[in-house]
Amino acid sequence: MVINAAGRSVPTEVNGEAQIPYLGVGKFKPTGRRYGPPLESCADFPEDGNKLVPSLKEALIQAGFKDGMTISTHHHFRNGDIVSNQIFDIAHEMGIKDLRWYPSASFPCHEPLIKYLEDGTINRIEGSMNGALGKFTSQGGMKGIGILRSHGGRYQAVQDGEVHIDIAVIAASSADSFGNANGVNGPAASGVLGFALADSQYADKVIVVTDNLVPFPCYPWQIQGNYVDFTVKVEKVGDASKIVSGTTAVTKSPDRLLIAELTAKFCEATGLIYDGFSYQAGAGGTSLSIGIYFDEILRKNQWKARFVRAGSNQYPVKMLEDGIIDYIIDGQTFDMEGVRSIRENSNHVPSSPFTSYNYHGKGNFASMVDVVILGATEVDVNFNANVVTHSDGYLLHGIGGWQNCLFGKTVILPIPLFRDRIPVIRDEVTTLCGPGELIDVIVTERGIAINPLRTDLIEKAKNSNLPIKTIEELQAEAEAICGKPQNPQFEDEVVAIVKWVDGTVLDSIRKIKQ
Amino acid sequence: MVINAAGRSVPTEVNGEAQIPYLGVGKFKPTGRRYGPPLESCADFPEDGNKLVPSLKEALIQAGFKDGMTISTHHHFRNGDIVSNQIFDIAHEMGIKDLRWYPSASFPCHEPLIKYLEDGTINRIEGSMNGALGKFTSQGGMKGIGILRSHGGRYQAVQDGEVHIDIAVIAASSADSFGNANGVNGPAASGVLGFALADSQYADKVIVVTDNLVPFPCYPWQIQGNYVDFTVKVEKVGDASKIVSGTTAVTKSPDRLLIAELTAKFCEATGLIYDGFSYQAGAGGTSLSIGIYFDEILRKNQWKARFVRAGSNQYPVKMLEDGIIDYIIDGQTFDMEGVRSIRENSNHVPSSPFTSYNYHGKGNFASMVDVVILGATEVDVNFNANVVTHSDGYLLHGIGGWQNCLFGKTVILPIPLFRDRIPVIRDEVTTLCGPGELIDVIVTERGIAINPLRTDLIEKAKNSNLPIKTIEELQAEAEAICGKPQNPQFEDEVVAIVKWVDGTVLDSIRKIKQ
Repeated sequence: MVINAAGRSVPTEVNGEAQIPYLGVGKFKPTGRRYGPPLESCADFPEDGNKLVPSLKEALIQAGFKDGMTISTHHHFRNGDIVSNQIFDIAHEMGIKDLRWYPSASFPCHEPLIKYLEDGTINRIEGSMNGALGKFTSQGGMKGIGILRSHGGRYQAVQDGEVHIDIAVIAASSADSFGNANGVNGPAASGVLGFALADSQYADKVIVVTDNLVPFPCYPWQIQGNYVDFTVKVEKVGDASKIVSGTTAVTKSPDRLLIAELTAKFCEATGLIYDGFSYQAGAGGTSLSIGIYFDEILRKNQWKARFVRAGSNQYPVKMLEDGIIDYIIDGQTFDMEGVRSIRENSNHVPSSPFTSYNYHGKGNFASMVDVVILGATEVDVNFNANVVTHSDGYLLHGIGGWQNCLFGKTVILPIPLFRDRIPVIRDEVTTLCGPGELIDVIVTERGIAINPLRTDLIEKAKNSNLPIKTIEELQAEAEAICGKPQNPQFEDEVVAIVKWVDGTVLDSIRKIKQ
Repeated sequence: MVINAAGRSVPTEVNGEAQIPYLGVGKFKPTGRRYGPPLESCADFPEDGNKLVPSLKEALIQAGFKDGMTISTHHHFRNGDIVSNQIFDIAHEMGIKDLRWYPSASFPCHEPLIKYLEDGTINRIEGSMNGALGKFTSQGGMKGIGILRSHGGRYQAVQDGEVHIDIAVIAASSADSFGNANGVNGPAASGVLGFALADSQYADKVIVVTDNLVPFPCYPWQIQGNYVDFTVKVEKVGDASKIVSGTTAVTKSPDRLLIAELTAKFCEATGLIYDGFSYQAGAGGTSLSIGIYFDEILRKNQWKARFVRAGSNQYPVKMLEDGIIDYIIDGQTFDMEGVRSIRENSNHVPSSPFTSYNYHGKGNFASMVDVVILGATEVDVNFNANVVTHSDGYLLHGIGGWQNCLFGKTVILPIPLFRDRIPVIRDEVTTLCGPGELIDVIVTERGIAINPLRTDLIEKAKNSNLPIKTIEELQAEAEAICGKPQNPQFEDEVVAIVKWVDGTVLDSIRKIKQ
């Protein structure tokens, strides 16, 4: 273990592989070259383009499915994914062990995989471990050490050759037998497939699974068949109705509505919103409300947003259709209106972690966004933030695009001052996911704290009638109400690590003391 | 020099690099991995995404422009390209020598570069050497040895790391300052940018030049800004009116019209045209006429083509708009109707040498096309064909996608029996570009020859009233009229080589004896 540049104790070796400790934002410079997957010859693929095999199991066998492999999947079906579990059912049936599962995210629907983590079919998950999987990991149940990466960090790790994917399985709502695939057509249309892009480009073997096989060409080809080895037709590829999470309804909580209103007023008062500005607001209830306030401010001024980065849903779609937004640049759709829009509207643009988030590229979109609205489970007095563990120490969430979005021009965290009588502003976050230097503003129901580094915003907010406070003042208010929170108790054992966007190790997550 | 599997004498080393002689169709299997370009960090690129530099010269300097580099350009402006010449004017002005020019094709507009081939600014061209550049090469004027590759071979060579591009310059009719670019918008819109795809993905440094700078995002992003280092705004980026070559008018020659009619009748009589079939017909006068016959056959039967691979122009565009074709899959547009259509019609699909032609991928589109119509300067009695030299030995054309298209299910060459009283069917082709086993049918104004390997077609054509002959009969007819043609006289010196789609050396082109 070493202490990294953020003052966090991190392992120098994880799952037998050497790790670089976090060096600071923009400090680690990669050397070497992008990973190059094996060269192929068209002579080894069917001339008529038909790569269909009878079943997922057959495709896995032909791809050389065996012990110790890395198997990747994507999360565009979110809680409606059914293919990931099938892969490991097949592995279990075949007696295959020690797999690394490399999903772009996991969901409650993946809870059945715990039995395969227990029996050694799966050695570890590298990817988000939400809910039950996270709890299981925090309790020390997983054999290997989990690795949490942002969406951009996942692309970076594959591109840089840190993670070598043996077999990628891409569930698509529409595909042709050559492997061209998309998420916009078919009964299970769920929008886009960008999270599977790295997998298609860099995996040794790529399997496309669909329940909606169309004659060549399947277009748009969000996944290009030229990267695909095998195609499989199944009865049902996923349940698109479950892409809508519980978080996609506008909040009705008076506190959250107040936070949303304060956030919007802050952006308006400080000139962050202007004709041609851009923003990213998540799909949570508070974020949705903020988006609605932004919409009102734009309409009132007869301004337009040049683009919105999304996670799309009905609200930005309406703004796009009303001409209030020029473009939605979308990594995943959060409801069926998003799916419809991305299918119909050429200004609703599918994107990928490569375009939006990859830190080892020649720039990315995330840093070009004017206002970024993000959540957090905890923030500390240095504006450092946590999104993966709760204050009880349990790993319960993935990073998603959160770390990547921190590179936006102004990053605002609208968060309640306490949750379940536990203050959200801490002396130190339980797990460090985002360095405070990248987080500009904390908006709570009892006041707004601006990062002292943002003297420009402090100046602009001065003459507003907004409740600007220091973060220490906000912390004191919370503690006056709830008391000083207790720190969770951990064992020494590291059960997971949190990577920074450049592949270095930002923090460790330890086993819960029970 | 060694004799390769096609019986051709080819060098084992070219420009100091070892070469693999042609081994036969599908015989050479590549080993190793795709080339990986250097890893980058977003920390080294502007956070606001603005990569603009004041001029092309400044961009080249910042990209490290120096002696011996490989500079790539694309040919989507065809004879209206102005940027390529500017690059070498700058090189000359800066005293830079020994450059390798790696265009996706060259045109008569590039004749001014001969002076730079003479003075050593450019060592050699690897790419098509049409017209004056070809003649100059055939006369032994170029310092290095030219390398002719197909469009797919060009992608393959870059992907496989055979050709390392130092600086790619991509002229785009529309771009944003981040480098997202397309060919569909702006005053110089010329359709697509697929020929620059490999360059963007694999070059060390990528410069996008445009005369139509739009606010981020420039969409569609046929070229993704995440691959781009520098952007440059210029007065004029190209002359789109010159994408229309002389060859895009329907033929008026009675002989050519007869050839077109015989070709269409052959396809109809042998059942090659059916509801849902696919075809590729070039932009030459005869090919256009064949497309018109195909259109009539489809309409008459109330059939549709599932897709047309193109080089698009007004004729397939009309068919697409009339619902006779489901999709045009397009690598380059040949007229302004093609440009309009690809901008407006989501079933007019931009493609690239990666999707369509790369032989070192997991299949490509070329082999999935039912009927492929191609030209040739010469064919021999074994159905081998030549597209780069004339029977006088002069190198006058590039390969284009021709070699790649030979993998279509049925390849038909509609060619006149003689040109300028020189028979087109020879004992042996002057330069071998396409192995006879891939060429199925020769259609001339005096009869149709079917490759003996295609017993199925011979059988199906039996009871037609078409003038089916052997290729030897056709040769004899031509020689009876024109006499036996003389072979050109060559020196020993190899001035260029012809690569096969897999990077092996198919043939050599020698200096003309003068």
